[in-house]
Amino acid sequence: MLTVSVADRDPVPAADRGLAYGDGLFETIRMVGNRAVLRHLHLDRIAGDAHRLGITVSRSDLEQALADAIQYFQADFSAAQQDAESRNSGWILKMILTRGSGGRGYRPPESTHPHLVLSASELPPMPDQRGVQVSYSSVPLVVNPLLAGIKTLNRLEQVMASREFTGGEWELLMRDLSGAPVEGTRTNLIARLGDEWLTPPVESVAVAGVMRQYVIERLKNLGERVSQRLLPADLVFLPEFQGLYLLNSVFGVVPVRTLDGVNLPVDASLATISDPLETLE
Amino acid sequence: MLTVSVADRDPVPAADRGLAYGDGLFETIRMVGNRAVLRHLHLDRIAGDAHRLGITVSRSDLEQALADAIQYFQADFSAAQQDAESRNSGWILKMILTRGSGGRGYRPPESTHPHLVLSASELPPMPDQRGVQVSYSSVPLVVNPLLAGIKTLNRLEQVMASREFTGGEWELLMRDLSGAPVEGTRTNLIARLGDEWLTPPVESVAVAGVMRQYVIERLKNLGERVSQRLLPADLVFLPEFQGLYLLNSVFGVVPVRTLDGVNLPVDASLATISDPLETLE
Repeated sequence: MLTVSVADRDPVPAADRGLAYGDGLFETIRMVGNRAVLRHLHLDRIAGDAHRLGITVSRSDLEQALADAIQYFQADFSAAQQDAESRNSGWILKMILTRGSGGRGYRPPESTHPHLVLSASELPPMPDQRGVQVSYSSVPLVVNPLLAGIKTLNRLEQVMASREFTGGEWELLMRDLSGAPVEGTRTNLIARLGDEWLTPPVESVAVAGVMRQYVIERLKNLGERVSQRLLPADLVFLPEFQGLYLLNSVFGVVPVRTLDGVNLPVDASLATISDPLETLE
Repeated sequence: MLTVSVADRDPVPAADRGLAYGDGLFETIRMVGNRAVLRHLHLDRIAGDAHRLGITVSRSDLEQALADAIQYFQADFSAAQQDAESRNSGWILKMILTRGSGGRGYRPPESTHPHLVLSASELPPMPDQRGVQVSYSSVPLVVNPLLAGIKTLNRLEQVMASREFTGGEWELLMRDLSGAPVEGTRTNLIARLGDEWLTPPVESVAVAGVMRQYVIERLKNLGERVSQRLLPADLVFLPEFQGLYLLNSVFGVVPVRTLDGVNLPVDASLATISDPLETLE
């Protein structure tokens, strides 16, 4: 039994385990009119990761809730819908799925009643497709293998890293304790190195984004070599380095133009061959 | 400006960053009548750790909120108050402090308006003071040095470990990736090894509990040797091992009688010399 509520209308009980322990996960979905970009990947991920956390909810319940949410919010975003042909049009639908209330302390109740909280917001400004300015955060990223890749509500590391934004950077990159760049606060990374694409493996990342998955599949379908392994700490200084890209399901592929003041080569082709807006049915 | 709300009366806005990102922390305080056990340590910790997270709240505001909360909830717990002479009497006051609402995604707003959510509950059953049965959890504990020791709202590791309770154990112990026992799901650890007490250092633990701090100070005042370093993985099999104790501000010192079926020596003296109820003014 899934309880669905709408953020602006229904407040959350203070006993919800999502607040008490970050016991849940979320999706941020780019909408164009009434169509969800990368819809199947988002639904697959939230259903699969809820299962990993032991939150019992069916993919079909989530699918129905998404359809209802779109209908509920659509009126508010009709202006964006009319302008659906523009690249920068659309809106954002956020789904927070918690384990619900109950249990004894950290220990969840035997049978949980998950809670889905829906909210809508405007599309944020899109980044410059010619590339963005990025710096390293001083906050290390430390990933528990049991939770790796899951977009859980435990996001204090990303919050703490985000406090270091000074205004000029579009994103801050986080490194693991060995110094390897792992991901941005809200983006995954993929680099072009020699004749292959390189992206940190799921077990190393805090969030394995749907855009990351989409780009990997797209590149493989095009016959490109994609390796999932840690990026070298000195990545951008390697002679075979040819570019670094940020991946996010709202922003798509975002090339990095400078990293901590170092100019990087920028190539728009990855963004062109893996444009999630092209997948809209 | 601190917004204070009461859990049963005031629901939480769905946009609160405590729900969205676990962007906050909490305290669970044992009450005896209108007196808070280890009151100063709890207030020091929440004020100090809020500062580490960049949540701007003064200790005096927290102290005032605690006093108001006690007055608000006291009527509900008058039965427990009348029985205040019994060791097992009292109630629990929980304070959740979040960064409040606002900001752009993970990035907090320039000036935050923290939110304090108060709730009260009955005292849970006290453990057998002759010792309890514990097991190891299969969930590893992985600690970000920036957040080490802070009782943040990011507690999914403890939730996942707690899902492994089968009923017989009073606590499950978590180990770091090297196999060293670090802490229980809701307790800190201290062991007696030869002529010293050994407890994992703050930088290795997820939560540095106030009971841990109280016991360390108490032992040092009594002239005992206390070392803060990692416990050996084979701790209980070492010839100089003399006992393992769980520390929690609600339950006090709880001796471990068996660990994964291995009988351990139990000595009640640590519980006797560091009884937090003795500190009540």
